[in-house]
Amino acid sequence: MPGSSRLIPAPITPSGEDRESERAWGFEDSGFVVKDGVVRFESKRYPGAGYDLPAFAPFVKTAVGVAFDPSDRHEPRPIDLPGTTPGTGLCERLALALSAERVSTDARLRLRRGHGHHLEEIFHLLYGQLGRVPDVVVWPETDDEVAAVVALAREHGAVVIPYGGGTCVSMALTCPEAAAGPVISLDLGRMNRVLWIDPVTRTACIEAGAVGRHLEQSLREHGFTLGHEPDSVEFSTLGGWIATSASGMKKNRYGNIEEVVLDVTVVSPDGVVEHPVSVPRASHGLDVRRLIFGSEGMLGVITRAVVKIHRLPEVTRYGSLVFPDWARGLAFLTELSEWQALPASVRLVDNLQFRFGQACKPPSGGVVRWLQKAYLTRYLGIDLEQMAAATLVYEGDADEQRELEQRVVRAARRHGGVSGGAAAGQAGYGLTFGIAYIRDFLLPYWTIGDSFETAAPWGRVDAIIAAVKAAVGAAHTELGLAGHPFVTARVSQIYQTGACVYFYIGFHYKGCPDPVAAFRKLEHAARQAILDAGGALSHHHGIGKIRAPYLSQIKSEAALRWAERVKGALDPADVFAVGNQRPGARLAE
Amino acid sequence: MPGSSRLIPAPITPSGEDRESERAWGFEDSGFVVKDGVVRFESKRYPGAGYDLPAFAPFVKTAVGVAFDPSDRHEPRPIDLPGTTPGTGLCERLALALSAERVSTDARLRLRRGHGHHLEEIFHLLYGQLGRVPDVVVWPETDDEVAAVVALAREHGAVVIPYGGGTCVSMALTCPEAAAGPVISLDLGRMNRVLWIDPVTRTACIEAGAVGRHLEQSLREHGFTLGHEPDSVEFSTLGGWIATSASGMKKNRYGNIEEVVLDVTVVSPDGVVEHPVSVPRASHGLDVRRLIFGSEGMLGVITRAVVKIHRLPEVTRYGSLVFPDWARGLAFLTELSEWQALPASVRLVDNLQFRFGQACKPPSGGVVRWLQKAYLTRYLGIDLEQMAAATLVYEGDADEQRELEQRVVRAARRHGGVSGGAAAGQAGYGLTFGIAYIRDFLLPYWTIGDSFETAAPWGRVDAIIAAVKAAVGAAHTELGLAGHPFVTARVSQIYQTGACVYFYIGFHYKGCPDPVAAFRKLEHAARQAILDAGGALSHHHGIGKIRAPYLSQIKSEAALRWAERVKGALDPADVFAVGNQRPGARLAE
Repeated sequence: MPGSSRLIPAPITPSGEDRESERAWGFEDSGFVVKDGVVRFESKRYPGAGYDLPAFAPFVKTAVGVAFDPSDRHEPRPIDLPGTTPGTGLCERLALALSAERVSTDARLRLRRGHGHHLEEIFHLLYGQLGRVPDVVVWPETDDEVAAVVALAREHGAVVIPYGGGTCVSMALTCPEAAAGPVISLDLGRMNRVLWIDPVTRTACIEAGAVGRHLEQSLREHGFTLGHEPDSVEFSTLGGWIATSASGMKKNRYGNIEEVVLDVTVVSPDGVVEHPVSVPRASHGLDVRRLIFGSEGMLGVITRAVVKIHRLPEVTRYGSLVFPDWARGLAFLTELSEWQALPASVRLVDNLQFRFGQACKPPSGGVVRWLQKAYLTRYLGIDLEQMAAATLVYEGDADEQRELEQRVVRAARRHGGVSGGAAAGQAGYGLTFGIAYIRDFLLPYWTIGDSFETAAPWGRVDAIIAAVKAAVGAAHTELGLAGHPFVTARVSQIYQTGACVYFYIGFHYKGCPDPVAAFRKLEHAARQAILDAGGALSHHHGIGKIRAPYLSQIKSEAALRWAERVKGALDPADVFAVGNQRPGARLAE
Repeated sequence: MPGSSRLIPAPITPSGEDRESERAWGFEDSGFVVKDGVVRFESKRYPGAGYDLPAFAPFVKTAVGVAFDPSDRHEPRPIDLPGTTPGTGLCERLALALSAERVSTDARLRLRRGHGHHLEEIFHLLYGQLGRVPDVVVWPETDDEVAAVVALAREHGAVVIPYGGGTCVSMALTCPEAAAGPVISLDLGRMNRVLWIDPVTRTACIEAGAVGRHLEQSLREHGFTLGHEPDSVEFSTLGGWIATSASGMKKNRYGNIEEVVLDVTVVSPDGVVEHPVSVPRASHGLDVRRLIFGSEGMLGVITRAVVKIHRLPEVTRYGSLVFPDWARGLAFLTELSEWQALPASVRLVDNLQFRFGQACKPPSGGVVRWLQKAYLTRYLGIDLEQMAAATLVYEGDADEQRELEQRVVRAARRHGGVSGGAAAGQAGYGLTFGIAYIRDFLLPYWTIGDSFETAAPWGRVDAIIAAVKAAVGAAHTELGLAGHPFVTARVSQIYQTGACVYFYIGFHYKGCPDPVAAFRKLEHAARQAILDAGGALSHHHGIGKIRAPYLSQIKSEAALRWAERVKGALDPADVFAVGNQRPGARLAE
């Protein structure tokens, strides 16, 4: 604990009411539905919900080239509950070490902890069967209890897989089929408190199982914010962010997770790895804690972290900008990337994604819409089929942010950009959370798709996007799929030397014998195109199992050997044999 | 190489004329001297040199409590050249692998590569004898040649110590006395080119042996800057910065070294560890390259890095601020630390250090000085014996920096600060390079001292400074040293959660039987006081051998075991047995 005398204990009490869907992304009380033949987004928690979305169905036709027919459903199978083989005495000993209530072999609990939210996993949940899932779930509450679970696992030849929010999209939670012993899912859900807040130094110590929305709420009650907002912030946890090297939408202001975290505590087979004192920056020799970022459960259990927190911003302002085309929007972003300070969030969507967003919003009044359109098209000469749109979020000191906004708008003008107003910016930013529900809504309507990301040097952004479009198109044709593929890109983060490019791809799968295999082929085509064009294998989703086959393309042989040696040295008994990041894994065909 | 088509090859030709002093910091042509009984700073390369400094000698009296007597010198001994025992056949085989001209057993070359610039090393160079120094020096030019040296070392049971600029102050270059085999100093001096510049993505690939002043000059010729300016930038190298986790004075604009470097190439016993494609940010699993930061020669040879570069700033502006006292200056810094954008450099010196700086500058004209003084003291009511001073550097876009400067000055006013003008800021910033010569100038005048740093959480800054003063004072008294100790602090970097605090300590050592042991005792007292009060063991100097005994106070046992396991796994034959970061090393008494 730091030396400040004004530490505030701030326990989080997780609310029991926010039930998540069992076979889809998100809260059970929210989602897209078809009512009287029209698509609606129903929710009490998201703004802009509860309206008919008449543009949605036509957009699906535009996107995948096949009409959306609400009466033609691919009905999911009943849920398939898995068996368990925890082995002799393991559960009993776990119950002794923790308590009987914090050890469970309940099938639904085990099933949930056996998957993340990759398309393939959800498809199998609906229409097939997941592979192996954990045999037992435990909820330790202290480092000692975590260590006890690790020790028992070692003794019983079991595998421990730490579990946070279950939102990963890299299949990092998939259990290794080949594991000889039982699989223990170590759920951090009971280690979710804000342990202390130091208001002078502006740091907090938070347990790794704290869910983003809870910990943010708890900090806000004390006048602080973490500001880390990955798209999954409603469900994902601090520990998961660290394990996957997460990125937040407002990283320009608050940093990505490696910049947010000052210190991390890991219960490893060697004991508790931690630094007793957290300092703003250090040159302390080999910093093994840095290995934990991106470790995906392979080295130990992250139990808590000391993080930077910020006083609640004086202002939060939104903005939006409309550019005549993608090229000019991208040139604007490239100019911003040379600045010292940026809006907390800067995103740029391509034309198709802009129209996708419009289709997900309730139509504004007829006259307003006509006026907006007329202003853009007639007065400014912007082609609605060519334009690109940026959303911006400003957070911080009022003077600082006002000046920043003025500079941003002046810069946008130099690239032909015009302001689209704060409301459009706020709606565009908030849309992220709603859009996350669409994939699983569309699956039973014969439409399959998913998102993935890369990081691209500025000099390669356009080449990468073009290559992905071409590769996905070619794969779609080769497979003889119906309609055309949906491929759209946005820049979701900018850096001094490049950008995170986020893609959606999808297609109509009726008539396709193996939609998952077809999707995998398209995703592989896109991935390989990205790597060939100089992009990252992942910006923030991680490697897990899905991207492991590509590792040998982005790391030298010696770098891969180093990773193996480190894993072998730090977990010699392979207790954390989750099987992620194994470059020998099979490439999708 | 990134995909940009506009790569500019930009070789650095090291100039042969800039000779460094053999037994002191800095260039041979620059330094403090006594002429006609008055101290002067002589140099053709630094602004403000070539004047009498009449205030210097009186300041030494103020600082250490004993008058400075230019006629009373402790004359250094003649230089003591070391022998060599490279063992049978090693040099011959090295000469075959490289070339005869790039392998040397010259005593002066070996001596220079056997030390950094810690006070203890320089004192021994002047008055005693260094311990073991390398047996042979090699200058490889390619990764293959580095690998050949490593392979030969392995075969001959030799130790390889990579050598960059030789500026380290942690005794990281000290040879292990106990090594059974010969010690090879692997000098990166011939791997010092800018290999390419990508002007679109704004990255460059630079060899690790490139010296700061050379690589900066080379980038400037192409319109770019790295912006990384550690105090040692004139002599230290890119590879050294990475190996020690260096910090630059303008880090608020350009980042510390871990933020500057996108990718690093290491020739290890396992082969060449690298990532073929550099991306702005990635979630690529276990990132073993991150272990290289702070590795201090223990894991391999850093041969090059891909770094972020910046277009030369539109403006560079200096500023200075005068605060009535340290507390108000520190409150100002704490306020700044919450901002999104900061001046490239923000530093705050305490009253003693301010006067130290004044004593190192030629006096300005009498009337000007009287007016300045009168303005501060009579008009503003500032006590010259209490005030603290800040220097600021602004670099970047003209609009952005002008607005930032205005906000900074407004904030300073809220804390009772007034502008001291740009000239004072520029002089204060530049003083860093001149001050570095003082320690070795004073040694023969019976005055011993050195600098060291820590990083402190905001809530601990004042407690740490007070604890250091008390501890050094107590140790000085206990040792019965003459006069009083010199202890002064500045904040040289600010972070969101704290600051780098840089100390100078010193004392008059005439009559002291073992000045090095006495200094060590004072430094230990200060170091332990810092750790007890919640500060870092090092902000940017590193661990090496000097700080290794304290490691067990800042890392848990399991964290130390992890570091050992990693070292053992990645260098199993212990080719890089430089002996740094061994927590078992003896604490100073």
